[in-house]
Amino acid sequence: MEIQVMKNILGENDRIAAENQAMFRDKGVYVINLMGSPGAGKTSVLEKTMERLKGELRMAVIEGDLFTSKDAERIEKYDVPVIQINTSGGCHLDAAMVQKVAGKMELGDLDLLIVENVGNLVCPAEFAVGEDAKGVVLSITEGDDKPLKYPLVFKESSIALLNKVDILPYCNFDMKSAKADILALHPGMKVVEVSCTTGQGIDEWCNWLKDRVAEKRRG
Amino acid sequence: MEIQVMKNILGENDRIAAENQAMFRDKGVYVINLMGSPGAGKTSVLEKTMERLKGELRMAVIEGDLFTSKDAERIEKYDVPVIQINTSGGCHLDAAMVQKVAGKMELGDLDLLIVENVGNLVCPAEFAVGEDAKGVVLSITEGDDKPLKYPLVFKESSIALLNKVDILPYCNFDMKSAKADILALHPGMKVVEVSCTTGQGIDEWCNWLKDRVAEKRRG
Repeated sequence: MEIQVMKNILGENDRIAAENQAMFRDKGVYVINLMGSPGAGKTSVLEKTMERLKGELRMAVIEGDLFTSKDAERIEKYDVPVIQINTSGGCHLDAAMVQKVAGKMELGDLDLLIVENVGNLVCPAEFAVGEDAKGVVLSITEGDDKPLKYPLVFKESSIALLNKVDILPYCNFDMKSAKADILALHPGMKVVEVSCTTGQGIDEWCNWLKDRVAEKRRG
Repeated sequence: MEIQVMKNILGENDRIAAENQAMFRDKGVYVINLMGSPGAGKTSVLEKTMERLKGELRMAVIEGDLFTSKDAERIEKYDVPVIQINTSGGCHLDAAMVQKVAGKMELGDLDLLIVENVGNLVCPAEFAVGEDAKGVVLSITEGDDKPLKYPLVFKESSIALLNKVDILPYCNFDMKSAKADILALHPGMKVVEVSCTTGQGIDEWCNWLKDRVAEKRRG
């Protein structure tokens, strides 16, 4: 019976996610759903993305958190429209939450909408929100065993950002093995080494985003 | 209706957790449920704990992971009984899972059973497994904003280990502010700065565990 209920919830979520996807398609905005553990550096990546792409793309951000508006406050400094969703303890964003706040945005004025999910490497990967693609941020401080231990988020994501590579010398992280595991889970996946401190990889990530936006615009 | 179902599941979990608690009390084994984000260093803390307490306490470990037996393999090296629970994608351990595997252990031969939960700073805090206490491991690489963003796990835990302090110089982590936030959420909580690389704090954590085991034995 519990499984039945779970299926119903997921079915209902998929229905709303499809509505969101149609809305985003209609408005011509590319949507990426960014996931990762607490402290993987999702908001830091967004800060660098705002800095780098501000003149080139019209962007907005939806921030997901259990509590607090700390992340939205960090993004607001870049003068980009941002809405905070507080899940009050809920472990992921769902399509209905995103629908509710996206309806308040001027979507027609946007090229790119980034949804930063709740910090959680497990549950968010199960719930589509109407995105064009999912992305995962993994901090190298989390360890190179994480792709095989949390496979779904890597299978679901189109791009993996391996973040905080500036402190690789102080961590036990086997980059070669982590990348091999990621590519075994998701052959052909885009994997970028990133540091928000040194700026490494930010251009490659932003160029990937620009290509996706251009691709969607061409239809 | 979904809330109703959630209540039923939690009610059922609490019932089984109470059974587990009675079983652990009967056998005189102290049980701690260790939680934290992916890569916070829970297994590394356990490795240090096994090394440090091996001659003094009779220990066993239950490892929770979505997939793989990587963590159990790391603990097995210390010649300590260890059982791996794979949740097949499930985001937390529940009381029924722990009951199933604890029933296979020689609990009467143990002083201390450590349950390492699935790497997730959100969901595990909602599900008791019959433990005497919960503990949380937070890596300082995750950022000092995490206590306020993930308050439940700090409210529920009796001890917080702030791990990886050896790389504090390379991270933006305000220790004073993080500790103040933790103590605001949970006044009087035990907070220990730990490094599994240098060994800092391991004695303090292990002494805390020994005191809890002795306390339970006295009844």
